[in-house]
Parts: sequence; C-alpha cells; structure tokens
Amino acid sequence: MIKAGILGGTGYAGIEVVRLLLKHPNVEITRIVSHSYAGQKISDIYPNLMGVCDIVCSALDTDDIAESCDVVFTALPHGASKEVIPSLFEKGLKIIDLSGDFRYNDIEVYEEWYGQEHSSPELLKQSVYGLCELHRSEIKSAQLIGNPGCYTTCSILALAPLVKAGEVDNKSLIIDAKSGVTGAGRGLSLPNLFCECTETLKAYKVATHRHTSEIEQELSLLAGEDIVLSFTPHLVPMKRGILSTCYANLKRSRTAAELLEMYKDFYKDEAFVRIYPEGSLPEVKHIAGSNYVGIGLTVDKRLNRVIAVSCIDNLIKGAAGQAVQNMNLMFDLDEGTALSEVGSYL
Amino acid sequence: MIKAGILGGTGYAGIEVVRLLLKHPNVEITRIVSHSYAGQKISDIYPNLMGVCDIVCSALDTDDIAESCDVVFTALPHGASKEVIPSLFEKGLKIIDLSGDFRYNDIEVYEEWYGQEHSSPELLKQSVYGLCELHRSEIKSAQLIGNPGCYTTCSILALAPLVKAGEVDNKSLIIDAKSGVTGAGRGLSLPNLFCECTETLKAYKVATHRHTSEIEQELSLLAGEDIVLSFTPHLVPMKRGILSTCYANLKRSRTAAELLEMYKDFYKDEAFVRIYPEGSLPEVKHIAGSNYVGIGLTVDKRLNRVIAVSCIDNLIKGAAGQAVQNMNLMFDLDEGTALSEVGSYL
Amino acid sequence: MIKAGILGGTGYAGIEVVRLLLKHPNVEITRIVSHSYAGQKISDIYPNLMGVCDIVCSALDTDDIAESCDVVFTALPHGASKEVIPSLFEKGLKIIDLSGDFRYNDIEVYEEWYGQEHSSPELLKQSVYGLCELHRSEIKSAQLIGNPGCYTTCSILALAPLVKAGEVDNKSLIIDAKSGVTGAGRGLSLPNLFCECTETLKAYKVATHRHTSEIEQELSLLAGEDIVLSFTPHLVPMKRGILSTCYANLKRSRTAAELLEMYKDFYKDEAFVRIYPEGSLPEVKHIAGSNYVGIGLTVDKRLNRVIAVSCIDNLIKGAAGQAVQNMNLMFDLDEGTALSEVGSYL
Amino acid sequence: MIKAGILGGTGYAGIEVVRLLLKHPNVEITRIVSHSYAGQKISDIYPNLMGVCDIVCSALDTDDIAESCDVVFTALPHGASKEVIPSLFEKGLKIIDLSGDFRYNDIEVYEEWYGQEHSSPELLKQSVYGLCELHRSEIKSAQLIGNPGCYTTCSILALAPLVKAGEVDNKSLIIDAKSGVTGAGRGLSLPNLFCECTETLKAYKVATHRHTSEIEQELSLLAGEDIVLSFTPHLVPMKRGILSTCYANLKRSRTAAELLEMYKDFYKDEAFVRIYPEGSLPEVKHIAGSNYVGIGLTVDKRLNRVIAVSCIDNLIKGAAGQAVQNMNLMFDLDEGTALSEVGSYL
Repeated sequence: MIKAGILGGTGYAGIEVVRLLLKHPNVEITRIVSHSYAGQKISDIYPNLMGVCDIVCSALDTDDIAESCDVVFTALPHGASKEVIPSLFEKGLKIIDLSGDFRYNDIEVYEEWYGQEHSSPELLKQSVYGLCELHRSEIKSAQLIGNPGCYTTCSILALAPLVKAGEVDNKSLIIDAKSGVTGAGRGLSLPNLFCECTETLKAYKVATHRHTSEIEQELSLLAGEDIVLSFTPHLVPMKRGILSTCYANLKRSRTAAELLEMYKDFYKDEAFVRIYPEGSLPEVKHIAGSNYVGIGLTVDKRLNRVIAVSCIDNLIKGAAGQAVQNMNLMFDLDEGTALSEVGSYL
Repeated sequence: MIKAGILGGTGYAGIEVVRLLLKHPNVEITRIVSHSYAGQKISDIYPNLMGVCDIVCSALDTDDIAESCDVVFTALPHGASKEVIPSLFEKGLKIIDLSGDFRYNDIEVYEEWYGQEHSSPELLKQSVYGLCELHRSEIKSAQLIGNPGCYTTCSILALAPLVKAGEVDNKSLIIDAKSGVTGAGRGLSLPNLFCECTETLKAYKVATHRHTSEIEQELSLLAGEDIVLSFTPHLVPMKRGILSTCYANLKRSRTAAELLEMYKDFYKDEAFVRIYPEGSLPEVKHIAGSNYVGIGLTVDKRLNRVIAVSCIDNLIKGAAGQAVQNMNLMFDLDEGTALSEVGSYL
Repeated sequence: MIKAGILGGTGYAGIEVVRLLLKHPNVEITRIVSHSYAGQKISDIYPNLMGVCDIVCSALDTDDIAESCDVVFTALPHGASKEVIPSLFEKGLKIIDLSGDFRYNDIEVYEEWYGQEHSSPELLKQSVYGLCELHRSEIKSAQLIGNPGCYTTCSILALAPLVKAGEVDNKSLIIDAKSGVTGAGRGLSLPNLFCECTETLKAYKVATHRHTSEIEQELSLLAGEDIVLSFTPHLVPMKRGILSTCYANLKRSRTAAELLEMYKDFYKDEAFVRIYPEGSLPEVKHIAGSNYVGIGLTVDKRLNRVIAVSCIDNLIKGAAGQAVQNMNLMFDLDEGTALSEVGSYL
Repeated sequence: MIKAGILGGTGYAGIEVVRLLLKHPNVEITRIVSHSYAGQKISDIYPNLMGVCDIVCSALDTDDIAESCDVVFTALPHGASKEVIPSLFEKGLKIIDLSGDFRYNDIEVYEEWYGQEHSSPELLKQSVYGLCELHRSEIKSAQLIGNPGCYTTCSILALAPLVKAGEVDNKSLIIDAKSGVTGAGRGLSLPNLFCECTETLKAYKVATHRHTSEIEQELSLLAGEDIVLSFTPHLVPMKRGILSTCYANLKRSRTAAELLEMYKDFYKDEAFVRIYPEGSLPEVKHIAGSNYVGIGLTVDKRLNRVIAVSCIDNLIKGAAGQAVQNMNLMFDLDEGTALSEVGSYL
C-alpha cells in the first residue's frame, strides 16, 4: 500500500483528495495535516466521512510526514507550499503540490504574476507541470509535480489541438471562463457568503488572473512561439464545475467536422477526455463529480472563427482528481485508478 | 455476473440504479427499458455516462427481459408496476419494485391511499417490504421486493427505536419532512421548473401524502398497535436529500443520552445508520450522494418531548441505493457492495 | 419630512430598512451609521443603490443623531442595542429596535434566553412589542418599539386566532419553521458560505432558539395562560423567506372551513394578512419581496389536528417592513405607506 | 388614466409588465389576455398578486381590447405577435411588442434568422426599435414599438460608445453573454426543470442565436458599416439577470480612464445607465430587480483589447421595464415613472 499524507486536508481541494484516496485500492491515508484543525477528527469537520474516515488531523511535522508517508499532497495556499516542500523533497518523498508554486518553467513569470519571490528556484526547475494529457512521460519520472490550476486545465485542453496544429491565429485567442464557488476555497470572505453569491454572476480579475500566465506557458510550448491571450474568469452560483468558452480565428477555412477529427486524433489515447459529436456541446453537469473533461466546438462560418467549449469539475480534474491521476502515473499504477466513476448528473 | 435490467431506466430513480450498478463488481447491466427513449443510447440522454455506459434503451419485451436478466429493477410510475411485474415474476425473475405497488401488507390500505384497485393481490402477499434494517431476513429469501418510499425510509428509521421500545405516546407522533426536488421526478410539470421552485419553499399534500400510510404500517408493526400520525412533506430548493424532523411525547422522563444509547443498540449491526453524538444533528450534506442515514435527537425537557432528526439521500437510501442493498441481500452478496462510498459534502 | 437614521445600516436588516425608506414619500434618510464602514458611501457597499442613495456612512454619535433625526432604526446585534438606546431615548427620539433587547414583558425571560443581564430594565417596561396586528394601539403612542423577530412574527400570526379562541390544546403546540439564509445575517461564518449551505438543509438550535420565548410570551398573552411549546428552526438554501408549519390538537371537531372563517374574522381589518381559501396554502414565493403574510390551514380529521402554514419575507414583514409599518403607526401615517407593493414571484 | 392591456400576461415577461404597471400612477390595467388561463383570476396563477390585482384573464378579442385599452403590451411567442398586431394597429392602439417580430429594419434579416415569412412587412416599416437610449425621439412619436431582446439590450449598450466613436476594430467584436433561467420563459421543457438546470452551466445556440442579428443591426447603424460579430449565450442557474462580457480590439492605445470618460459622455443624459468607476465592474445583483444597466470596462494593455462588462435584469430592462419606459415616452410621461426603484441586492 502507498502511504499518503495530505497537507491542508481540510480545505476544499484537500478534502477532495482525501475522498478520492478513500476509494483507491492501493493507497492508505496515513496523515491529514491541518493548521486550523489539528487534534480534531476529520469526520467532525466533514461529517460525510463519519465512521469511514475518522483520522485525527495533525499539525505539520515534516519528520513525522517523512516517516509515515510515501507521497504527500500539498493543498496549501499559494506561497505557503514553497516554504514546506523543500524539506519534504529532501527526505525523498514524492510530492504533488496543488498550489501555483511549482507550475512554472520560468521563475520570472511566477514572480511577476504571484507578486513574490520564489524561495526555491532550484526545486522549481526539477518540478514537472502535472497536466497528464500533455506531460505524461515526464510526470512518470518526476519527484515533484506542480498540479495545474482548475481554469488552466479546462482551458488548455480546449485549445491544445488547435494551437499545436497551427490552425489558429495565436493573437486572436480569448478564453471566457466560468467557475463554481468551490473554486474560491473555504476561507471566510464576504463575497463567498451564500446571500452574496447566490442569484448573481460576476466577472473578476479581468485581464489579471494568475491562471492567464499558466495557460500562456503551456499553449506557447505547444505553439512553439510566445502566446499572449485574454482570459476572463467569472463566478457562477453553483458549487462545482468550470466551463471555458474559447474563441480563436481560423487561419484557413475549416468545418467543425474537420476540427473535431483533429481533436479526436489528438486525444485518441486519453481515457478522461470526451470529444463531443458535431452539434452537441459539454455542460457542467455532464462531468461534475468526475475526472472527465468534455470538449465540443462550433465553427462560425460568417467569421471563420472556432468556438470551443470545455467543461471540467474544478475540484476533480481541476485539482484533486488530477493530483491522484498524477500519483497513479508516478507510482506506475493504472492511470484511472479511483478516478473512472462517472458523475451523478443529478 | 448477475445480469440486471432496469425498467424505467431514464427516470431519476432508474438512472440512479444504473449509476450504482455500474460500480457493482458482481453485476452487468444487460437491459435498460424506456418507453420514451427506446432506440436511443442512454448516454445521449444522460451524457455523464458517455463512453462508460452506452447501452441502447429498449422497449418493454418481457420475454427478452426474462432471457437476458436475473434481476429486474422496476422504476415505473405507481400503478404501472403492478401491470408489468406479474409476468416477470412468473418467469422466475427476482424483482425490486421502486413504486408503491408492492409495499403494503393490507391491500385495502393500498387501494384507499392510491385510489385504484390492485390487480395482483396474490403477488402483493408474496412481496416483502424492502426496508433492510427492519426486514433483512425476509428480504434474503424474497423474489419480489416493494422498495420503500423515500420519505418513509427516512422517517421510519428515525422513530423505530422509540416506537419499538414503547417509549413514546403513539398518538403524539408528528413528522415534518423536507425533500429536494429530485423527489418530484423528471416529468414535465410547471411547479418543477427552475424558476418556479428555486428561492421558495412550500408544504404540499398536507395530511394526505401516500407515504403516511407506509410509515404507519411499519411503525404499527413495531409498536404492536395501530398508529395514526401526522406527516407533512415540504419541497426545498435543492436537488437531493430528505430531512425528517420527528416529534414524540415521551411517556417517561428520559435524557437524550439515554435515548441515544437505545438508538445505538437498536442499530448496532447496521453499516449504513449513523447515530449522532449528543449535541449534534445530521444535515443533508452529511449524507447526500451516499447510502448512509444520519439520525440525531434532542429532548426538550420543558415538554418531555423528543425531537429526532434524520437525513437520507432520497435517490440513494430513499430509492436506488436501497434497491441495490436489497439486491445484495437477495443474492447473498455483501450488503454494502457498491454502496459504501461517502458522499462528497461539496 | 420625517428625518430617519439607521444604526447598523450595512447589515442585511439595516440595508432593507434603507431600501424601504427610499420609497417612502414622507421620510428622508439623514444618517446611516455603521461601525465597520464609517466614511464609505453606502452605495459602495451596496452598489444596487448607486446614484440613488450615496449617503456616506458615519460612526455613532448620539448627539449628531439626536440633532439630525426624528426616528432611529437600530439594527444592531442583540445586546448592543440596549447600550445605545437609552441615550437616544432620553433625547426624545422615537426608536424602533430590531434586536431582541426590547421585546420582552418579563426581564427574567430575556435574561434567561439571552444569557445576559439587561442594563435598562426601566426602558424595557416602556417599550412596546411591535407586532402591529396584535398591538396596534399601544404602538401608536409608543416612543420605543421592540420590533419582533422574524420566526416569531410568522409563527405567532399563524396560531393567534386558534389560541385566542381557545380552540386548541395549548400543550400540543409544535412549530416547525424554515428560514432562508439572510436570517443568519451578514457576519462572516463558515456555515454561511455558499458552498456550505447550498444544496443542503439542517435543523439548528432545536428546543433552545431564543424566538421560542418570544412566541410563548405573545401566545400566552392571547391565551390568558402560560404556554410552553416546541419551536424548531431550519436553514433552507434560499435567500429570503420563512415558512412555519404549525401543529395543534383541536379541542372540538372543527372543519378547515370553520377555522378559516375564524381566521378571516380575526384578521378582517389587516391589510397585510392574506388568509388562503380552503385547499390552498401559502408558499414563500407568494410573499417574498413584500410585507404580506400568507396563512392557510388544513385539518387532519383522523387526528383532529389542525396544521396551519404561514409565510413571510423574513427581511420585510420579519424585520425592516414591520419596522417601517411601526414607524407609520407611530407617526400617524397610513400604515401601508411604502409597503403595499407585491413581491415579484420570480 | 392610461388604460393598458397585456396580451400573454401570464408568461414571465407579461406578468412582469403587470407587476410594474401596478406601481404606475398614470396607468390602469384593464385587460390581461391569456390563451391558457382565460376565465381564471391572475392572482390564482400568480398568488403574489392576491388581493392587489385580481383581474380575471380573458381570451383574445381585438374589438374588446380596442374599446378598453389605450395601449397594448404584446408578450406573445415570436411569430404570434405579427398575426395579432395588425388589427390592433388599425384600431389606433399604441402597441409595444415584446417579441422579435417588429425589431428589424430589414425584413430579410428577420426572415433569415426567424425562419419564417413576415406577414406584415408594411407594419414592420412603421415600427420603431424601442431601445430608449438610442432611439428616444423616434419612440416618442411611434405607434408600434419592437421592444428589444434581453441579450441585445445588455450587449448593445455595452459596445455602443466604442462602436459609435470608431475606437475598435469592428471585425474583432465578441460578446460572451450569460443569462438567468427566466429568459427561457415559462413553457414546459425538460431542460428548464429545476433538477436539470441547477448546479450546472451551458452554452447554447452558439453562433446561431437570433439576438445576434439584432445586435448586429444596431451596432452597424452606429458604426455606419456592416458589423458581423460573435455572440455566445449561456444559461446560468439563477432566476434573473444577464451579464455580457464584450471583447474588442482597440485601434489606438487607450486607457480605461479615457474610455470610461467616453462612456460617461455618451450616456450623460441617461437615468438608467450606470457607468462604473475604473477598477470596478457591475455584477448581476447590483441591478437585479431594477431597470438599471451597469457598465464597466478594463483595458488589457498587453493585447490593446478592451473588455466591457454590462449587466441588466433580463425581465426588466431586458423586457417589461424597457416596455414601460417606451410607454412612458410614447405618452409623454416622465421616462422613469414606475421604474426608478433600486433592486433589493438580497
């Protein structure tokens, strides 16, 4: 059995890692670390776990973690991860970090978009960007994974085949993304109160959201040239799910059918990517509660513009599910272990 | 492998049976019967299943069902089940009926509360009421199960220990129950439109809801005397879940701690019943998405009245999950197979 | 023009007073006092007011309030009101207090249920309980009003005619009440986050909620004897509205039609009380956004029990609307001024 | 008093006209015409009106309408309006049509996007597009108004100042719009059930939604050249509100401050348009329940692209409120009569 620890296990992403690992036949959870709830049973904080997982949360003790874990999932706030991870890394643990701290190839990009110095530039170099569909082979041999952001996973996968194939004008890319409220986490903040965010809708961090830089990094890699694009996040009154509506001007005249063939080919070996048939598009409820990604597209012939729509569950494929998928790759397990269930639709 | 068919597989209860059986290691779904969608892939109707379950729905053909199935789940409208089930029964199939047609010991009670004649009185006699926690041994040897209603499962389990022990005045029982909207099913009706039932709340069928009679039947059996009680259902703007608030006057002075001990003892062998410690009560999100039942209680000393609160997921423990639990018992499998996962809280 | 100040004007009840007064032809808002937002424009905190009400919030200064206001609405936390009100009272201001501090006839009841000493017992004696339908004449001549709680308004009005007429067994009263989340206010607390309270339901403070004592006070007054009853509040995932389901055993056999006649007669002069015809019941969306109260009932003949259902908007008839209704009475205006609009249903 | 009739008064747009007119000091509602509910009281269908508006719905009788009304609001399905309106027009009634039938300057555009012949081309010529902020003077003297669509009102107002000033590349316009579910109307359809559209999100009619043509018509008029653009509607789990996120490439380098000055100037006489200060953007809850339009913008300097965000209440400024605003203009009343209230935020 793989012994797993979760740091920040009482946040929304952390507890989702816990929930998924409880289904995993090859994993035993040995530690749940929580700053705020050390000493309390995880099932007192999340009573859905009552009687099934009653582990007592512990305070952070890297020696203890090193002794009791083979792999650690760090679901800490951005900036906090990079302080904790070096000592875990030295002790030889495999680490999957759900923050933004180890996602970047270029430290300057990190420092610019996150507004802080990176204290472990050498570790950053060794980390692998954990978007399984694009970096599978590097992930398999990595010790440290920068698990991708939720918006970024959804958006990159929607545009990757077009950008890789050079079918679109890379200066024309616009991603209009919408997320459920779990994306904002469990911290106490006025805008996240039920009465503040139900029955409304807003755009936020327009042209300044950090995930912009992460999307640009990965699409630039695929394109072989620097891509700068528009990314606009919105907050939608639902718990889970992201939908990205992506606009790109086609270089040549293409039909939806032609492009969909290209997508099917690009993702032909991917168990979690569902390409929709022409005329239908993914909706959040098709994938909520699962690790699947839905992608569909339309071509607006009047404008020779492709509109690709993608959906993921932000807490699963956009966080905890992808983290487990990365762990499966790192431990040479079947990639879909504990992840292949469909969502419940209702 | 047990071969299973689902009749009415495109309704909300039916598709939940499908979803749970997809996780079941001993079951293969061989038929999904749908009047409205015969000829269409189930994954076109419920795209969450895309690529995972793409069975084509078929029209009802009892000979075909008999040949291709060992067990049939009938998730048909009340009244329709009793027309279809006799021929399936004769062919020797095991049947779990999710309608109200085979839940009653007394045909007159059925006919009074359902306003129709029962066409198969002899089969009604052979059917077993499928509330696993109360009728486990009969279920194991039954060929036909009347799977309990959602409100009834939640309410009976909340009051059973008190009534069985004779601790309460049976004339004082009041059940104030609240359900999510999946309980109303998938039929087109104005009150179930999003804009009609979000941001509101209502009581309905006050003193006339059919589940009243089902609760009375079971509690009367436990009490050894006829019980008549108040049951008031309400519709709440959420998808899943039932919460029953149950009031009963205590015959003797009892503390919450004493009563909770009684509950723990009553349910000591039950894997799916969670008795809450004194001072805490179940909430819908603790059990939504799972087959678990949460039960807690308080004693109001000023009135010597116990208030018991219970929660279930109406589509799982209140319908499809309990149906699978019944199937597990009927086929001598571990009762919790495919059912032991916790819900997601978020 | 009546000059009005609102203390605690940035909370949910306070801002609703502001919104209603903006429609009032006889009132000018002169001060909005806010501890947290002093110095900021109210329209920066509640941008729905942008360009319509851009008053700058001020810190509390009782001299300034006395000079600039004729009437003050205090929408402060329970306990805080009673510290501020005496000095305002001395200066001759009319005061409508939305907290629990001035609602009680018996100081001991307050101190027991609120767990604190009352620092102004003499003022408490002079205050009038502002449930307009029951205390209109005293309100007209009062200087200080204890504006009723939300659950209490809804529940008292549902049971008043029965209790006053002596039709029910006063020991059998059970009120099962359900509220939207605005009832929990605007304070930062984990259970009020969107992701914590959407798609779920819970009972809370069972047998211990403070509003119990307020309901008992008023029903006891009507009955002419001490009433002790069960009151169970629940939290429902919607913004506004309360629905109370009230159970009472009838002393004599009565039909719903007979009781409804009694209700119509009891409320015959009340502009804001709507008695529903036999066979129909109020729903939250019938009154949300308005000052109206909906009341309907059913008799369960099997048990000779009446089930009365009532609905109000907790922020309007349950707080700010009733406060304005009280102000209208105190200033001898038409009682319905600024309050007669219907809600929007959608 | 102006005598008003509402045709299709039981749909969501129709009943909102009724609700707004009840507040109008110069209007008396004399007829509510409903095909489905003729003979029933409007307050039985919408009980929020109980005791305030109990008009009995009538079947369509154009002679009766002509005798009893000065102005008619037609809130009928697209295509049905153009069959009814000619006879009302001949009788001299003023007509405000909420369907798409009389919104177009070019009959061919209508016939292409609505897939049907227009039976009254001569009336279409006489109709005026009722977007008050752009066509005020023509509206004042019109007899027949084509009241704009909801998405179109929100989107046109967001882009008008930019397009009029020639600041943006007209080939680069992309409108990503999100609507609440009331936009889908009150018809029975599976996707509009609560359980189908809560906790999810979808794009629909991508590149084919009819409102595209309406937006293009008006922006082309402002630009003085033909504009073709991308418009993508999405359905969001909330009742009311539209948010349009609009992308346009700037021809010259401009700051947000410069553009906002341009917007303020463009809308300087408009009572219902709120331009947000730099750094803040409108959210649906800022305008829901009101006739106001919120507009804000950001410039992404990296791309020299402006992102404008606008919000309206789809049932008010996007339908019934704008219809009443048009009526006020046609009858030479203060344009804001019955419309100036703010929404409730909560």
